[in-house]
Amino acid sequence: MWVYLFEEGGKHLRKILGGKGADLAEMTQLGLPVPPGLTVTTEACREFFTHGQKFPPGLEDELREKLRTIEAKTGKKLGDPSNPLLLSVRSGAPISMPGMMDTVLNIGLNDRTVEGLERLSGSRRFALDCYRRLLQMFGRIVLGINGEKFEKIFNSAKEKRGVKLDLELDAEALAEVVEEYKRLIKEETGRDFPQDPWEQIFMAVTAVFKSWYTPRAIVYRRVNQIPDDLYTAVNVQTMVFGNLSPDSGTGVVFTRNPSTGEKKLYGEYLSFAQGEDVVAGIRTPKPVESLKEEAPALYEQLAQICERVERHYKDMQDMEFTVEKGKLYMLQTRAGKRTAQAALTIAVSMVQEGLIDIQEALLRVQPNQLVQLLHSHIDPKADVKPIAKGLPASPGAAVGRVVFDVDEADRRGSQGEAVILVRPETTPEDIHGMVAAKGVLTSRGGMTCHAAVVARGMGKPAVVGCEEIKIDLQKEKFYAGDVEVNKDDIITIDGASGSVILGKAPMVEPEIGKELGQLLAWADEARTLKVRANADTPVAAAKARSFGAEGIGLCRTERMFNAQDRLPIVQEMILSPTDEDRKRALEKLMPMQKEDFKQIFREMKGLPVTIRLLDLPLHEFLPRIDELIEEVATLRLTGKDLEALKVKEKILKKAQELAEHNPMLGHRGCRLSIRYPEIYEMQTRAIFEAATELAKEGVTVDLEIMLPLVGIAEEIAQLRRLVEQKAQEVMEQRGIKVNYSIGTMVEVPRAALTADEIAKHAEFFSFGTNDLTQTTFGFSRDDAEAKFIHEYLDRKILEVNPFEVLDRQGVGKLMKIAVELGKSTRKDLKVGICGEHGGEPSSIEFCHSLGLDYVSCSPFRVPVARLAAAQAKLKEEKVSLSPQKGD
Amino acid sequence: MWVYLFEEGGKHLRKILGGKGADLAEMTQLGLPVPPGLTVTTEACREFFTHGQKFPPGLEDELREKLRTIEAKTGKKLGDPSNPLLLSVRSGAPISMPGMMDTVLNIGLNDRTVEGLERLSGSRRFALDCYRRLLQMFGRIVLGINGEKFEKIFNSAKEKRGVKLDLELDAEALAEVVEEYKRLIKEETGRDFPQDPWEQIFMAVTAVFKSWYTPRAIVYRRVNQIPDDLYTAVNVQTMVFGNLSPDSGTGVVFTRNPSTGEKKLYGEYLSFAQGEDVVAGIRTPKPVESLKEEAPALYEQLAQICERVERHYKDMQDMEFTVEKGKLYMLQTRAGKRTAQAALTIAVSMVQEGLIDIQEALLRVQPNQLVQLLHSHIDPKADVKPIAKGLPASPGAAVGRVVFDVDEADRRGSQGEAVILVRPETTPEDIHGMVAAKGVLTSRGGMTCHAAVVARGMGKPAVVGCEEIKIDLQKEKFYAGDVEVNKDDIITIDGASGSVILGKAPMVEPEIGKELGQLLAWADEARTLKVRANADTPVAAAKARSFGAEGIGLCRTERMFNAQDRLPIVQEMILSPTDEDRKRALEKLMPMQKEDFKQIFREMKGLPVTIRLLDLPLHEFLPRIDELIEEVATLRLTGKDLEALKVKEKILKKAQELAEHNPMLGHRGCRLSIRYPEIYEMQTRAIFEAATELAKEGVTVDLEIMLPLVGIAEEIAQLRRLVEQKAQEVMEQRGIKVNYSIGTMVEVPRAALTADEIAKHAEFFSFGTNDLTQTTFGFSRDDAEAKFIHEYLDRKILEVNPFEVLDRQGVGKLMKIAVELGKSTRKDLKVGICGEHGGEPSSIEFCHSLGLDYVSCSPFRVPVARLAAAQAKLKEEKVSLSPQKGD
Repeated sequence: MWVYLFEEGGKHLRKILGGKGADLAEMTQLGLPVPPGLTVTTEACREFFTHGQKFPPGLEDELREKLRTIEAKTGKKLGDPSNPLLLSVRSGAPISMPGMMDTVLNIGLNDRTVEGLERLSGSRRFALDCYRRLLQMFGRIVLGINGEKFEKIFNSAKEKRGVKLDLELDAEALAEVVEEYKRLIKEETGRDFPQDPWEQIFMAVTAVFKSWYTPRAIVYRRVNQIPDDLYTAVNVQTMVFGNLSPDSGTGVVFTRNPSTGEKKLYGEYLSFAQGEDVVAGIRTPKPVESLKEEAPALYEQLAQICERVERHYKDMQDMEFTVEKGKLYMLQTRAGKRTAQAALTIAVSMVQEGLIDIQEALLRVQPNQLVQLLHSHIDPKADVKPIAKGLPASPGAAVGRVVFDVDEADRRGSQGEAVILVRPETTPEDIHGMVAAKGVLTSRGGMTCHAAVVARGMGKPAVVGCEEIKIDLQKEKFYAGDVEVNKDDIITIDGASGSVILGKAPMVEPEIGKELGQLLAWADEARTLKVRANADTPVAAAKARSFGAEGIGLCRTERMFNAQDRLPIVQEMILSPTDEDRKRALEKLMPMQKEDFKQIFREMKGLPVTIRLLDLPLHEFLPRIDELIEEVATLRLTGKDLEALKVKEKILKKAQELAEHNPMLGHRGCRLSIRYPEIYEMQTRAIFEAATELAKEGVTVDLEIMLPLVGIAEEIAQLRRLVEQKAQEVMEQRGIKVNYSIGTMVEVPRAALTADEIAKHAEFFSFGTNDLTQTTFGFSRDDAEAKFIHEYLDRKILEVNPFEVLDRQGVGKLMKIAVELGKSTRKDLKVGICGEHGGEPSSIEFCHSLGLDYVSCSPFRVPVARLAAAQAKLKEEKVSLSPQKGD
Repeated sequence: MWVYLFEEGGKHLRKILGGKGADLAEMTQLGLPVPPGLTVTTEACREFFTHGQKFPPGLEDELREKLRTIEAKTGKKLGDPSNPLLLSVRSGAPISMPGMMDTVLNIGLNDRTVEGLERLSGSRRFALDCYRRLLQMFGRIVLGINGEKFEKIFNSAKEKRGVKLDLELDAEALAEVVEEYKRLIKEETGRDFPQDPWEQIFMAVTAVFKSWYTPRAIVYRRVNQIPDDLYTAVNVQTMVFGNLSPDSGTGVVFTRNPSTGEKKLYGEYLSFAQGEDVVAGIRTPKPVESLKEEAPALYEQLAQICERVERHYKDMQDMEFTVEKGKLYMLQTRAGKRTAQAALTIAVSMVQEGLIDIQEALLRVQPNQLVQLLHSHIDPKADVKPIAKGLPASPGAAVGRVVFDVDEADRRGSQGEAVILVRPETTPEDIHGMVAAKGVLTSRGGMTCHAAVVARGMGKPAVVGCEEIKIDLQKEKFYAGDVEVNKDDIITIDGASGSVILGKAPMVEPEIGKELGQLLAWADEARTLKVRANADTPVAAAKARSFGAEGIGLCRTERMFNAQDRLPIVQEMILSPTDEDRKRALEKLMPMQKEDFKQIFREMKGLPVTIRLLDLPLHEFLPRIDELIEEVATLRLTGKDLEALKVKEKILKKAQELAEHNPMLGHRGCRLSIRYPEIYEMQTRAIFEAATELAKEGVTVDLEIMLPLVGIAEEIAQLRRLVEQKAQEVMEQRGIKVNYSIGTMVEVPRAALTADEIAKHAEFFSFGTNDLTQTTFGFSRDDAEAKFIHEYLDRKILEVNPFEVLDRQGVGKLMKIAVELGKSTRKDLKVGICGEHGGEPSSIEFCHSLGLDYVSCSPFRVPVARLAAAQAKLKEEKVSLSPQKGD
């Protein structure tokens, strides 16, 4: 069957009737006042394309037959001048898709039926205007004539008569326009406008089919990952006219407020108008509530229909309707788009109303939407124009004065001024400036550059790699295209979208309402996967716990080395000529590290804390080589400050000695400590002194020590002994035993491939999927995101960015191997993930399916992960999904 | 049984009797004149260590019992003054192992038996000298007294008498020495030298056991990967005395010449002497052949024994013998160490003599030894002292004058002068200098740095990363420690060992004799794995074919971009502001590439040629950024040459734009061509124009086009279309069809993990195990070899360098996955390897076991690979190995 009457279809046939067709059929089945119509299936469209762009056999006959039924139902007839049946033709794919064919209205009009319409409506002007509209839409959309040519004719008619509004053109003028439109069509296509209504229909259906492959539609599908072989359906429906009379009109209604979720009709209505008049925006529609007074019966009918349809679909609906001479017709219904807040409110209150169950409510909210609720963000209702776009490195929005100098940012920020630090990129030496600033904007770097990682760790908004801005540090200004932004100018950055806005954009402060609390409580009950946070500081740890983290899955110790008061000591350690000097410098760091650990342990109140020993290569703690080279060259040539030259030369020499061709694959992680065991020894001592001192205060610590970058079983075997020995020493000195376990990151392929051997020495694994993705693909994230990933996405070589969404086929296969091999030698191996994927819903679903024990993500992502983990569990249990999912 | 009499053992008991013990037993079984003796097993040694360093129960009794048998056999008795039994005690592990306990001779002597010996030998001096030796050896080795203390006593005895040679000391003097030795032992150990022969034996056996764990032995085992739990046996044997009379003596004989392999007795003999006298080197031994005249009967007997033993072991033997009063005793036999040439000659001639079969001959030669035969090398007999050591980057030795300037090296080298190019490192701009030089020495870089890769490709000797030398380019000199080497000084570099030698070292030119040809012909018959070569030039292709390559497995097109006449065009291409400019530059390269391909195809005469399209990241073709920064800074400050500044700034800007954080994981390989399709289009055109033009001349081409760095099926799917389309275009233009296939490197883990998907678009895989090792371990080879691999080897975290020997556990597992998945979707998938492991014997064996079709390696490694492939096949078939293997 190629064609379904609305009464033959239903929402279960979305795939072949498309979204719009299925919903029109469903509304018809519900007995709502839907103008009769039919849907040509997506299967017909598929046949059309797979068989030389011809109607499949039988389609034309079916169309004729079912249109006869509609004629019978309406009492009107196609081409019958006495009572002509007029139709609209619209596309409708299974997935809502802008960029497809527009609507063609008034099909069925021709030189003869236009007169019938005049008689029936009692208005020659109305009839001619309808005909004029058909000619224009059909000419442009079906026949492919440039729309401006129609506009030109229309406008010159208005000019000729000295009028401004369309409505001011009288019947005579419109009759002239109709004639000129027909001439234009003849000129452009070489044949007359088809007078046969059947031919009009077949041509319009063909045009809808073909619009599946317009460039805009193709791009849209590519961007939104919609398969090409879904195809579109075509809806043919009896016309109703909102522009027939003053008691006619057209409107849109949401069954609840799509912005707040409030349970109250929301929408707008324009009388004496068709949909396209609303779009044209010449008259302003009124709120739909105004009908309550103006047409109480109609409003009552509309409200009942809304209630009915929402109950039926069990979701907030977005509906289009038309009133023709006081009679209400429903033209479309679909699940309404909504803000994060509305999604949350609606889901929670629908449970309270008994409309949906908790499982359904959990599936109704997109986990990623929660991020919006947890950061200050730019008011979504505000109309702001970015002057540049960069990478959305750390969510949240920030407003402040532009400052280029790090120390200045530190000084002014510390005094309470709101500043945004703008730099080509940041280094560990800039951290104090970042801490004091409200947000960070850099022109270089990828999603894992220093600025991005540090900002995320601090929960501070950041836009990085914003190559559209050209920074002139000397003159303290930057350019975004033509816009010049000077020091002290106010800008707003939006770390969730990557936008940079000149001036102060209107902001919304985050609010964790009762509703979110309720939803997450439900999520906690539903999920089996635990959720931890990546937190390096006491502040972040507190934040994580307040967001419901069940432990710290990754406490990086790099930050503790990078802090402003420690970096000089760390550099002293690196520049040490002897082991002894190095140990002395480390000795100075020890009490500082210990204090950090104590504070974090206190915050976590006995929840597990996974501390990763130092991972960064040492050269990351020194200034950049190219800057040093320039400084040294300059100092040499000027020959003035020989002392400074000597110091710089020494640092440069060390930096060059430590420099690596591929630092990602270089001397870092546990490799570092095999060369310099004193670093991990110091860290182990700091951890165990902290833990034993707290134990004396009665604070329990659930301690997990994690060794980074292990790829060879013997690495962890040897380092494990070092940690155990130091731990033992401290515990014996203090006379207190602290429970702890030792495990490793799985972040190079070899760790996964030899996980059985490694698990012999590791009580837990934590997947470092950032690095694992880099090594599995052979992609340096910084380089790939700057140079070619976008091209890969555009060309569909990659469906999604594997640094954002876990690559199940490659990286996921390694993870599966690691879990299986690891558990083959250690049954109770604990397994988690602490890469950024740990906060991404689809990746969380995959982790759940692998049987991981927990995911760990940045504190702000913890609520996202809690919800995503619940959804993973529910989907696994094959809970029936919302019938409108995918719309 | 803890103790075996020689007549109870045999060579099959090597594991428990050790190498020496098993061979003594075997000789005894053969009826050779071996002084009677016994062996304490390695099992006894194991028991000793696993049970508190005590003799296992029963060992002492067994020793006593079996020594009684020896007493009976010899008619002598332990401790019997009238006819004392004297014994030697020696260690003997299952694997020959220096660093273990030395020999103790003359056990059984004491204050009373020494007189018996005097009577029996008729010489008081002889008897006392024997006793003196026992005391000295026993004191030093068994009792652990510093040997110098004995030397001091002995030397002062000589001084006192004003003599120089030991032999000049008379009996009286020796009697004094004996007394003083005994006093020294008492002083040092607190007790008298044990007079009881039994006690002497038990103490000596214990000392041998304990020597298993001397530091030297431990280090030796670590370095040579010998397990600690093999343990050592102890051999106790009746003494015979080569120093008893003028018609006594001691000697060593090889059954063939260990240097040339010639079938002729080879060795030396010293009369009136014991083994240690030969070592002392005071008297010069005579060639063993001299016995032919001096003692024809003895010589005849020795020759017969040699013949007999060699026939028995079916291998060239290295034997020790002693003559006591004209009677010949055999003391030891083992497989003789030999040079590469000798190994080859012996293996081939033993087949011809019918001693061994072809399979055995193939297993007798170490494949790696063949490399020595195929490069000029430093005469192994020469005594040369390196002034520095670097990485052995490209084998062969070269002599020439030191030149630092690349253009000068080019100029002088092209005029026929032998020069060695010495640079901190090399870049593509230096290639002309490298081509013209005899060899290359750099102070920076790892085994895959530019200099190393290019030199290996050219077959040119290179030592890289020689950090011991400090180069001063300004002054044109370098320092190696204290040695100053100036421009024009002559040096020799040995790219096989990494040595740098001042002056001209004596050289040996390579020679591929008939014997090698014969062995390789046998290997070709035995093996199933094909062997191809990595060759980028016509010269290398010719070399490869002459060494028996069955095709080119990797023809890199980088070199064609790097050649001196092309680099400017390549740089022009890179600096092109528009796509059009880039295409124009590529257009200039096309005819050059085509000519290269034509020449290579011609050389290969229809054998398969795998051409890899461009892999290098573009910035590799530009100068180094740090040099550019310095140049720009200098030009800016001097402000003189503004034109040059502008050009340099432009290049610097582009270089910075193209620079990458981790070039290994960056924008290279097929990723490059997805961004710039015109590069592969040009290369495809060059290849197919070359192939079609040759086809017209009647030259067939077996063409395989390889896409580098594929990790995503869609990459190859899209690029395959590009290549096919261009190929089709050319073939249609020319009206000629050329057969070709398209495949990919498997060099990132994801390619292996998704090999089923990739194989849908690839007719062949070639494992790029250099990169695959880097990404699987997460090791950047350049950084790892410079920074931490050596530490990993020293600390036994790695058994071997995975860049040299393929890591079966990790990388190998990925290869296995790739082969299985790949063949699951394409049954006839061709699979090879083109990483450097393709020329390494153990890796080749693994490739054979995976069922690969071919290995591809550098031309000079082709013979190695042919032999290794044959050995892999033979080992798989469980051909019985040489019984002496592992000695």
